[in-house]
Amino acid sequence: MQERKISRFPVPDLAAMPEDIRARIVAVQEKSGFVPNVFLVLAHRPDEFRAFFAYHDALMDKPGNLTKAEREMIVVATSALNQCQYCVVAHGAILRIRAKNPLIADQVATNYRKADITERQKTMIDFAITVSQHAQTVGEADFDRLKAHGFDEEDIWDIAAISAFFGLSNRVANVSGMMPNPEFYTLGRLPRQK
Amino acid sequence: MQERKISRFPVPDLAAMPEDIRARIVAVQEKSGFVPNVFLVLAHRPDEFRAFFAYHDALMDKPGNLTKAEREMIVVATSALNQCQYCVVAHGAILRIRAKNPLIADQVATNYRKADITERQKTMIDFAITVSQHAQTVGEADFDRLKAHGFDEEDIWDIAAISAFFGLSNRVANVSGMMPNPEFYTLGRLPRQK
Amino acid sequence: MQERKISRFPVPDLAAMPEDIRARIVAVQEKSGFVPNVFLVLAHRPDEFRAFFAYHDALMDKPGNLTKAEREMIVVATSALNQCQYCVVAHGAILRIRAKNPLIADQVATNYRKADITERQKTMIDFAITVSQHAQTVGEADFDRLKAHGFDEEDIWDIAAISAFFGLSNRVANVSGMMPNPEFYTLGRLPRQK
Amino acid sequence: MQERKISRFPVPDLAAMPEDIRARIVAVQEKSGFVPNVFLVLAHRPDEFRAFFAYHDALMDKPGNLTKAEREMIVVATSALNQCQYCVVAHGAILRIRAKNPLIADQVATNYRKADITERQKTMIDFAITVSQHAQTVGEADFDRLKAHGFDEEDIWDIAAISAFFGLSNRVANVSGMMPNPEFYTLGRLPRQK
Amino acid sequence: MQERKISRFPVPDLAAMPEDIRARIVAVQEKSGFVPNVFLVLAHRPDEFRAFFAYHDALMDKPGNLTKAEREMIVVATSALNQCQYCVVAHGAILRIRAKNPLIADQVATNYRKADITERQKTMIDFAITVSQHAQTVGEADFDRLKAHGFDEEDIWDIAAISAFFGLSNRVANVSGMMPNPEFYTLGRLPRQK
Amino acid sequence: MQERKISRFPVPDLAAMPEDIRARIVAVQEKSGFVPNVFLVLAHRPDEFRAFFAYHDALMDKPGNLTKAEREMIVVATSALNQCQYCVVAHGAILRIRAKNPLIADQVATNYRKADITERQKTMIDFAITVSQHAQTVGEADFDRLKAHGFDEEDIWDIAAISAFFGLSNRVANVSGMMPNPEFYTLGRLPRQK
Repeated sequence: MQERKISRFPVPDLAAMPEDIRARIVAVQEKSGFVPNVFLVLAHRPDEFRAFFAYHDALMDKPGNLTKAEREMIVVATSALNQCQYCVVAHGAILRIRAKNPLIADQVATNYRKADITERQKTMIDFAITVSQHAQTVGEADFDRLKAHGFDEEDIWDIAAISAFFGLSNRVANVSGMMPNPEFYTLGRLPRQK
Repeated sequence: MQERKISRFPVPDLAAMPEDIRARIVAVQEKSGFVPNVFLVLAHRPDEFRAFFAYHDALMDKPGNLTKAEREMIVVATSALNQCQYCVVAHGAILRIRAKNPLIADQVATNYRKADITERQKTMIDFAITVSQHAQTVGEADFDRLKAHGFDEEDIWDIAAISAFFGLSNRVANVSGMMPNPEFYTLGRLPRQK
Repeated sequence: MQERKISRFPVPDLAAMPEDIRARIVAVQEKSGFVPNVFLVLAHRPDEFRAFFAYHDALMDKPGNLTKAEREMIVVATSALNQCQYCVVAHGAILRIRAKNPLIADQVATNYRKADITERQKTMIDFAITVSQHAQTVGEADFDRLKAHGFDEEDIWDIAAISAFFGLSNRVANVSGMMPNPEFYTLGRLPRQK
Repeated sequence: MQERKISRFPVPDLAAMPEDIRARIVAVQEKSGFVPNVFLVLAHRPDEFRAFFAYHDALMDKPGNLTKAEREMIVVATSALNQCQYCVVAHGAILRIRAKNPLIADQVATNYRKADITERQKTMIDFAITVSQHAQTVGEADFDRLKAHGFDEEDIWDIAAISAFFGLSNRVANVSGMMPNPEFYTLGRLPRQK
Repeated sequence: MQERKISRFPVPDLAAMPEDIRARIVAVQEKSGFVPNVFLVLAHRPDEFRAFFAYHDALMDKPGNLTKAEREMIVVATSALNQCQYCVVAHGAILRIRAKNPLIADQVATNYRKADITERQKTMIDFAITVSQHAQTVGEADFDRLKAHGFDEEDIWDIAAISAFFGLSNRVANVSGMMPNPEFYTLGRLPRQK
Repeated sequence: MQERKISRFPVPDLAAMPEDIRARIVAVQEKSGFVPNVFLVLAHRPDEFRAFFAYHDALMDKPGNLTKAEREMIVVATSALNQCQYCVVAHGAILRIRAKNPLIADQVATNYRKADITERQKTMIDFAITVSQHAQTVGEADFDRLKAHGFDEEDIWDIAAISAFFGLSNRVANVSGMMPNPEFYTLGRLPRQK
């Protein structure tokens, strides 16, 4: 069904890519069983590819108080408001897997206020959305609200930076017409799934 | 998992419902294998239940040029912007089934402009969203744009009325805290499904 | 003066209407002295006509803690923000009559915060507007604010449902180009009027 | 009924006002039969009173291609979007009188696109609203659209200046809690009225 | 460099202006060393010129609790949101001079919440922006917040009136294409400057 | 004057920074004569520092059809709408220098539509703002408009990516309270400056 182009920009052949980029793509394929399209679409711009994934890893793979599932909640909630198909579908799948909850991604994407998540997590998403939509208003009151739920200053940087980084990602995906791989739509939807 | 209440308002026992309402609920259960929560939540208000489903059927089951899948596209796209969890999840399932396309609902919900649908369908959704978000601006130019894609005046009433009716539904669902049944999340996601 | 069409869609002859619809129209004419255009415009779609007025009556004629004038305040305030000429003019007339106050409708339509109504009524309208404009944000704090003014859960459903139903009505009126009858503009403007 | 204060700020006694201000108020009372509250509310600030009415007269009483009714349409349409009760009610009355049309003010206030006015007048109001709501975007295309309807550069300055001046007026009225006189609500509503 | 027209409307010769207007322009030139373009652009409309500057002086030169620098902060912050090039650049210069602070204008223009000003001044600007962007919502809570910082009712009128007046000014400048004089860009940028 | 903290987060000592980060900071200081605060603020997070500047350089230092001044226009215009003080002030300085025009930055920051730039550059900024504010709507018509001004697909990626990257930067700066160095306010304001 999905014969549509995954990007309006040229997608290079794996063979033609710089070695470090090809290596990363091969590694992700071995781990996931398929190559998420964001790797192929960004390979069109090797320097941006490298900076993008370096930034991604610095935020999503670093240690910290936010769980991996919570980081994905931020991505899904802000990307849904930015109407980014790639990020909602792909990170929705990752959220289902990280949270071991087949329903959570659709709930967070449509209206996180009604999702089966904690008040602390809703407050985290409230702030991520403030950063995404009107960061100029962020002030001491926002920090206080988060601290009342146990977040510290470094956690708050993390929430803001994840929201900001995926805001970049949402814009690049929307302009390039990046399409999510069909695999993402069903990943993690069955309770037993890894 | 889903032990959460399906409504913040009381949900009557099936046995305590008026006969006509109970009959409709029994019928839908026999057909679908489960009772969509909207029937149970609205049974709290029998007169509104009757009017709601009469309106629903008048728009969604009537003959006309819009396919059943197209009507569901309108529901999913406008409900997503209204951030209505129940309508996006439940009608997303129906859309997948009607369109026999496991990917379409998530695409239309996140950004219909990038969905694998026709230009005609995108124009239809453009108008449905205009009606949903600023109907006061609708004018001759909107009608002309739709007619250029083959819609006639009656089709345009249908698009507008479906958008308007689900706007009502979205608001009632959001205020009542109506939760989608877990079944809806996976329905129609496998290509083979009916 | 008013030779303008009352709808861009066909308006059926009274003689050609289904019996139940004609009967309702004859009844309203006998009671009011004229036929409000909404009856004629919706008669173009008999099933939607029946559902629409069943819904209307279920919300506006039911017993409950909201006075009839208060229900009309909700209609006028939300319809004004939706820029619905028919609903503001027609329900403005009904509001003047129900409240026995010739000034109230124009006040509520332009800026209810400055209208000669109670703080409780302003809080009711605040909520009706929240439902009308961003129902996705409704939460416990909204319920608490209303309860502090003596509204109970059922009253809150009523406010929300009236706001949601007239949101539908506003959209259908704006798309169909429904024009208010000239009679409505002056009804209830003289203190003595019934 | 209207025992409510007409301003949250002190309203000076006529006897205590500077001579020129008192004279203007006496003159308007003789002409209209009552003193519009804007004169009394602004008398609290004599210098601003003088500048305000000098500006008002420079725009509303000057010769030019815009009819007096058209100038009032601009006031009513922009003031309605600014939710200014005083300006909508008071200038609505003046519009009914100037246009000798008892229905026009409510139509223009709720949705000028559906009002019984010409396409040229709708284009004029479109521009007045652009100036009122996002003047920063005004460009050559706006001027061209107006010129296609016969407006010249000086007319366009007039439209913009009236919109801008009543934007000021709307803000002062909303902050001061300026209430319209009861007389305005009914003025010009009967076809025969002057 | 600046050979661009300072207005899209005709700018009269000094010799052709009414005597009082020429006199004011000569006086400002003697005091400032150049003629700010707003004087030349508005001279196209002598009556509006007189009313405009009478209003300006009534608000900006009157005695009162707001310092001259604070009044300019209101102008710069609201004009920046209205995207008015003339007002931000010209009043930015005046603000730097009044506050004897070369950095303050750019800070207030881009994000006053992060500017080196007091909490009291931020609260003042918050309110000025509320008046500028949605004066219809102003209520007792706004007055209370200002009073908690020592502003009295007359100060609040001043803040609102300055915001409202420059809203008018912003709109006229944007429609007329009024360009700031090159002199304004650098005035007050060196700490030593008067 | 500027004794205010440049970040609400800890700023590490130069001596305590990783070698590569210290080297970059020393290099920029030697070239510019001061260390722009963004380097010090981001040094709090070394991995994010590295990814941020790698991304920055990939977009701002790469060859391509956009001039360096044009890239800075994109930064200034989008950062102004995001109300980012650091980016408007710092990149405003760079824009003045790159364009050798002491007035351009304030013009682009307040209202680029009135700035002394080409129609082609205004179209470029229109698109950058679309990407910044509602990238989800980007479609073929946007690409066509840019191509009509001579931009090719790769240029369009560049515009979008710069807008997206500085959207990230704006958010991080607003949340961290990043303050611009005083040097930036005056750089490039005198025509003769390098």
